[in-house]
Amino acid sequence: MHLIDLIARKRDGGRIAPAEWHTFAAEYAAGRYPDYQVSALLMAIFFRGLDGEETYALMDAMLSSGGKLDFSHLGKPVIDKHSTGGVGDKVSIVLAPLVAACGIAVPMMSGRGLGHTGGTLDKLEAIPGFNTRLSMAEAKAQVERLGCALIGQTGEIAPADKKLYALRDATATVEVIPLIAASIMSKKLAEGLGGLVLDVKTGAGAFMPQLDRALLLAQTMVDIGERCGCPTVALMTCMDHPLGVACGNAVEIEESIEVLRGGGPADTREVTLSLGAEMLLLARVASTAAEARSLLGDALADGRGLEMLRKIVEAQGGDPRVVDDPQGVLPRAPEQALVVASHAGVVQRVEPRVLGRGIIALGGGRTTMEDEVDPSVGFRLLVHPGMHVTRGTPLASVLARDTAGLALGEACVREAVVIGDGDVAQPALISHRVSATGVQAL
Amino acid sequence: MHLIDLIARKRDGGRIAPAEWHTFAAEYAAGRYPDYQVSALLMAIFFRGLDGEETYALMDAMLSSGGKLDFSHLGKPVIDKHSTGGVGDKVSIVLAPLVAACGIAVPMMSGRGLGHTGGTLDKLEAIPGFNTRLSMAEAKAQVERLGCALIGQTGEIAPADKKLYALRDATATVEVIPLIAASIMSKKLAEGLGGLVLDVKTGAGAFMPQLDRALLLAQTMVDIGERCGCPTVALMTCMDHPLGVACGNAVEIEESIEVLRGGGPADTREVTLSLGAEMLLLARVASTAAEARSLLGDALADGRGLEMLRKIVEAQGGDPRVVDDPQGVLPRAPEQALVVASHAGVVQRVEPRVLGRGIIALGGGRTTMEDEVDPSVGFRLLVHPGMHVTRGTPLASVLARDTAGLALGEACVREAVVIGDGDVAQPALISHRVSATGVQAL
Repeated sequence: MHLIDLIARKRDGGRIAPAEWHTFAAEYAAGRYPDYQVSALLMAIFFRGLDGEETYALMDAMLSSGGKLDFSHLGKPVIDKHSTGGVGDKVSIVLAPLVAACGIAVPMMSGRGLGHTGGTLDKLEAIPGFNTRLSMAEAKAQVERLGCALIGQTGEIAPADKKLYALRDATATVEVIPLIAASIMSKKLAEGLGGLVLDVKTGAGAFMPQLDRALLLAQTMVDIGERCGCPTVALMTCMDHPLGVACGNAVEIEESIEVLRGGGPADTREVTLSLGAEMLLLARVASTAAEARSLLGDALADGRGLEMLRKIVEAQGGDPRVVDDPQGVLPRAPEQALVVASHAGVVQRVEPRVLGRGIIALGGGRTTMEDEVDPSVGFRLLVHPGMHVTRGTPLASVLARDTAGLALGEACVREAVVIGDGDVAQPALISHRVSATGVQAL
Repeated sequence: MHLIDLIARKRDGGRIAPAEWHTFAAEYAAGRYPDYQVSALLMAIFFRGLDGEETYALMDAMLSSGGKLDFSHLGKPVIDKHSTGGVGDKVSIVLAPLVAACGIAVPMMSGRGLGHTGGTLDKLEAIPGFNTRLSMAEAKAQVERLGCALIGQTGEIAPADKKLYALRDATATVEVIPLIAASIMSKKLAEGLGGLVLDVKTGAGAFMPQLDRALLLAQTMVDIGERCGCPTVALMTCMDHPLGVACGNAVEIEESIEVLRGGGPADTREVTLSLGAEMLLLARVASTAAEARSLLGDALADGRGLEMLRKIVEAQGGDPRVVDDPQGVLPRAPEQALVVASHAGVVQRVEPRVLGRGIIALGGGRTTMEDEVDPSVGFRLLVHPGMHVTRGTPLASVLARDTAGLALGEACVREAVVIGDGDVAQPALISHRVSATGVQAL
């Protein structure tokens, strides 16, 4: 197969056959196709798209370029969740142990922060000693023993996707829905799942802000999952403002533990329970959403979720005392200060991208994959859209390394929190449910 | 400047500014932009195009990435011709010495064969000893001394174009009119010309078969030339069938010498004289086409054109006796055979692509730039479309290295020469003239 023929065919609006996608992924992963040809193909795909069969075939080919976990001997349901990412999105850290505590195996593979959104792996590594770099064999053994592992994408998983993703990032071909869907699903389906729940963010802080495009992405991923025999459900959740209170690495671990203790911000808790209920339904350990939420509520109330997190932290080398005394164990920023409202009004917006970039500026995120992350910095947001404030009302606290960071963080809060006069419409926290049967507005 | 920003802007239909094109060409020529980003940009250009200003700026940027000849001290007009290439197109070999014999400096830079079309450099190298690899300084000195040099593109000329062309070839982004036009013109305008005549081929054997696209290419190149202060005229010439009789390297040198002796096939002669007349008009050594053709006719009749070729061959290390005894000096194929018509009828078509690929199959062309070329092989075509033939009428002679080659060549002739019943319409040999004032049908 000559790659140039595929480039020319896709350029002219033609289709690429499943066998060709498999050759492509295998040869590219093996280093036998030059990047300059692959990037031309990617740009042709940007303009011509991929149909459903091509998208599935590319996903399957990338999946087959690496190893796959097999839990078929486990005798219990294996379900995972994936989020398209946002600011303050610490849901995985609560959800994985909580659902595992309900008897479901959760082999959760997460990513690192890049751009304005944070990454679950960076957050977990705020816990002293926590190791996310397990091999596939180690992850498998931990899931068999505990029911859950929280790990990063290893080199063994979908290597063709790994190369392709890096190339897309360098060639302005990231925002292509079939490529995004195939990339996400090739990694998730390598986990050997019996079901998958997707948290597709929409709104100002989302990777894909427009609802119509986000819905198309959700439908494309659900379609891939179903074709693969892995029932898949997506919830469209609001990323017009950050989720919850904590934005940053250590502070988000703190908030996650609060939620596992039965507290925490209402929105973090609600998104977690909704996604968790879908996981329990896919696992068939509950037959109605109400029953599923009740099971999750029990695991929160009796502390089984928190205990599961303790076991995971311990198993992955972290300091397990973090679940009892997060503030004592997690790294603390040397400088903290409150930012208060300079005038009265109604909070119109809390811009997630501004705060996301603020975390990076404070040293808590990355602009390149090589950047070191300071887990201690970030924000605690004390307002949300629609809240009435008066002069002096605390808007947020800033956690910084030094006084320059405090000033920078304060400027960032003042830019992100827009105070105006009128009341504001609150977008729904969870707007749609997408499944094999279609799109349902909630 | 980040190349990814240009990729994203072009991908979204935006424009790239002249200064950005200059940075692009200089950095790419210097190896500071990775091919995988440049190929993504090329594919975005395939879909979004370049407007006139962008095309000119890219051409100018590629031109500026290398050296440029300067003949301003020469005190005589400097004019060149470029052809988009075809099968049997030996016009340059006749035209350059003929026009130089009329007192015009012709610093002719040509290419090698690749794909189904031959290359002037390969044809010239059929002459024992002929060296086309002159440096810019050597070429300049020869033009100053003799009025003409026949050379290849040196590494000093438009290095950004050279890299870009190779990348386009590997990424299915060759057939983009603004890129083709900018590539050709960046090389031609490096010759320090006062005028340029373009031979843009149309029809089945042309690089760009459709007349409308070929006309657009011609207009784009004329526009670039005029913007650069280099008056440019294009003639659209027929490549529905091979030009002349000889197709191959040594045989085309032979036919070129025949034309310089005042003979040769009518079509080769007519295309040469028409292009030559345009060169003389641009050079202002003639004020009407009739006067220009008369000057060229004189230089053929009194042998000045042939003598100029002799001097060029001698100056470039070739055996000058070739002009007196081409068959004695040029390499001869060990095997020759006539192919005759198997039934009576009218020649409907003589497919140039079939014969072009036949030359490659016989060993006289290239599939990769590394292939060795055997100059002795090829065809002499004895029929053209519209000719009536009977059973036994010779169609062509095949020149081959061995009897297997003869069989292959015969099959090729039988495929290329289509004999049918009805009369056929003959397309015009020269259909249009394109200049700064517009397109004129001839």
